[in-house]
Amino acid sequence: MDYKKYALELAAAARKASRKMAALSTDDKNSALFSMADLLERSREEIEDANLKDLEAGKDIGLSAALLDRLRITPDRLQAMADGLRDVAALPDPVGAVIDERVRPNGLAISRVRDPIGVIGIIYESRPNVTVDAAGLCLKSGNAVILRGGKEAIHSNLVLAGILRRAMEETALPVDALQIVSVTDRSVVRELLRMDQFIDVIIPRGGESLIRAVVEGSTIPVIKHYQGICHIYVAPSADPEMALEIVDNAKTQRPGVCNAVETLLVDSAIAESFLPEVAARLASKGVELRGCASARELIPEINPAVEADWRAEYLDLILSVRVVDGVKEAVDHVNNYGSHHSDAIITRDKEEAEYFIRRVDSAAVYLNTSTRFTDGGEFGLGAEIGISTDKLHARGPMGLEELTTYKYVIRGEGQIRG
Amino acid sequence: MDYKKYALELAAAARKASRKMAALSTDDKNSALFSMADLLERSREEIEDANLKDLEAGKDIGLSAALLDRLRITPDRLQAMADGLRDVAALPDPVGAVIDERVRPNGLAISRVRDPIGVIGIIYESRPNVTVDAAGLCLKSGNAVILRGGKEAIHSNLVLAGILRRAMEETALPVDALQIVSVTDRSVVRELLRMDQFIDVIIPRGGESLIRAVVEGSTIPVIKHYQGICHIYVAPSADPEMALEIVDNAKTQRPGVCNAVETLLVDSAIAESFLPEVAARLASKGVELRGCASARELIPEINPAVEADWRAEYLDLILSVRVVDGVKEAVDHVNNYGSHHSDAIITRDKEEAEYFIRRVDSAAVYLNTSTRFTDGGEFGLGAEIGISTDKLHARGPMGLEELTTYKYVIRGEGQIRG
Repeated sequence: MDYKKYALELAAAARKASRKMAALSTDDKNSALFSMADLLERSREEIEDANLKDLEAGKDIGLSAALLDRLRITPDRLQAMADGLRDVAALPDPVGAVIDERVRPNGLAISRVRDPIGVIGIIYESRPNVTVDAAGLCLKSGNAVILRGGKEAIHSNLVLAGILRRAMEETALPVDALQIVSVTDRSVVRELLRMDQFIDVIIPRGGESLIRAVVEGSTIPVIKHYQGICHIYVAPSADPEMALEIVDNAKTQRPGVCNAVETLLVDSAIAESFLPEVAARLASKGVELRGCASARELIPEINPAVEADWRAEYLDLILSVRVVDGVKEAVDHVNNYGSHHSDAIITRDKEEAEYFIRRVDSAAVYLNTSTRFTDGGEFGLGAEIGISTDKLHARGPMGLEELTTYKYVIRGEGQIRG
Repeated sequence: MDYKKYALELAAAARKASRKMAALSTDDKNSALFSMADLLERSREEIEDANLKDLEAGKDIGLSAALLDRLRITPDRLQAMADGLRDVAALPDPVGAVIDERVRPNGLAISRVRDPIGVIGIIYESRPNVTVDAAGLCLKSGNAVILRGGKEAIHSNLVLAGILRRAMEETALPVDALQIVSVTDRSVVRELLRMDQFIDVIIPRGGESLIRAVVEGSTIPVIKHYQGICHIYVAPSADPEMALEIVDNAKTQRPGVCNAVETLLVDSAIAESFLPEVAARLASKGVELRGCASARELIPEINPAVEADWRAEYLDLILSVRVVDGVKEAVDHVNNYGSHHSDAIITRDKEEAEYFIRRVDSAAVYLNTSTRFTDGGEFGLGAEIGISTDKLHARGPMGLEELTTYKYVIRGEGQIRG
């Protein structure tokens, strides 16, 4: 098979369709999303059959129970996909919104208007719901999308995308605005990542090795999310009861997600009273603590932390603990070891709070609240396509607006440059 | 020499300095810019001596007169660099501005606050003024900057950067926030382009081959500007006198710049009357026309255009001319052959205008005015560091705001996630 030709045709078709997408009305896009949701619901058997193939193949190659669970499309999960499309339809359309406008001394009226990005490539791993969720967000924001899911979910993904495309046939949307890569050979991805004439941005979703490989091989801009190594700094003036609740929540409410806390920084001024308390509370929840030397002097029963612990994204009931001297040392630790995702300070001192907020170089900086809130829904953006730990274009949760760019529109009455 | 070690130390020092830069007050940054401007003015002899070395070396290797002119630092040009720094000081500081804020139902106050990007790498070619201009814009927006100019300007660039760093010593700015690559071997650039842990964005300024090489080799996000293949479409209802003035201005006022027009699209409905007129006008200004078959039927004396002409950035007194049937064909031509920079429609028909504005996929879309206005100063952004033909992060002229990112700041009173 000629992988280059395959990739080229697919990407060129997406580019062509993106021109039509950019000019669609909000109503046309919304009613298409509803049609897609309806057809998904009516295609339950077809989807379950395809999903079963993936699950059986997964068992044959010995996928773990956790991975098989991610792969599984239960009736509830299918319903969530359909409902998700309807939720996206209900969100405001970002396209055409005027960001700012000005009239220049020469009479030129200059406005910046939101515009779709064009063609968005999504590269993801096992969960088949990404096929539907990403398609909904990209199409609503007026883009064409190229989806490339994991090999292990190929049957499910192809059937889901096929159903969405069938639904699009009856709508104003060009079917080619939704492309799915049906070839699992990695050569196709390699080719796609160099087609910057047809694809405007790549959003990889998955583990660090996937994302690193995409960044290395791509001539197309990439928006990425490497890791969530989140911190909570408990400052001298923190309300200890509040700090306890927040640390507990950020670690144990859902430890496997990127905005869960991984390192607790406790100020030396309150370590003696606070550390034993938080250790007892977390021990009762089954959390393993790994502490620096000073922490272990105060709570000798915990394990020692080694250098690698400060850079670990545990995604588990493990927390590293370090005693620091003052907010400056806390900020330095966060900036040096963190992943620029979500970091919190617990304090009643306003100046200390502002110092931390200004200097911590992260997508989300929290004062007196849990890091667990970094999420498009919690931030009021509606659905999200991911969380960016990059600084360009989008930082933090990415909703519909982050899937757009802008153009300058300049209206004149014959002005020329002198 | 160990190029990797050299690059690593330079980039790590810039990252460290960027932490301090992010927290500086506007006054501290502005007074530093003034000190830098003053010391430049006082260092005229030193600068001229270094520049002479570059000019002599340039003559020895046979640089063209045009390139030697670019390289030359005249007293006027030195004055312009110093004044440029003072102009940047006078611009509003984007850092700390609140982009938007909201209070969530759970009481969390969420704001998006402008924040410096961090470390910006600028890779440029012969003009030494970029050393000063780019430094001023990056420092004012709270960033550290790594400058890597052309080999042919190395003496001038090193002396200019050295003077700026000396001036910084007496200010609140960390000297390491301004780094210049003193080694001309390309291995250093290759190493820097992979240091995404220390450098946040690369802005290349120069010819297409330079930019392409940067994109190929970089794991750091790149904001770029490939070409300016700009169009003017003269629609059936255009005011012919206005169209004539605009085409003349966009082609001849300064033909060597990226926002000059390169292709004229004339609607078939008015070609018969308009084409001979515009041909006569442009001939009188020394412009060579290259036309499609239909254009040559109406003005036989012009040269034929070949396919390559539609993709040519002449930067010269040459204009390709094509007759098109209707606004749709015009838009298709612009989107297929253009460089997504600046494109104009001349029309009195509102619907036609909106069709063109909505569908042309360019950074700047003009109605009834010259494409020559795409410029940070003309748009009211103050100085610009370049014009992006990318769609991510920044599109069109990039001013101080485009050298920032944002962070989410979330203030609570003990909220935890349920």
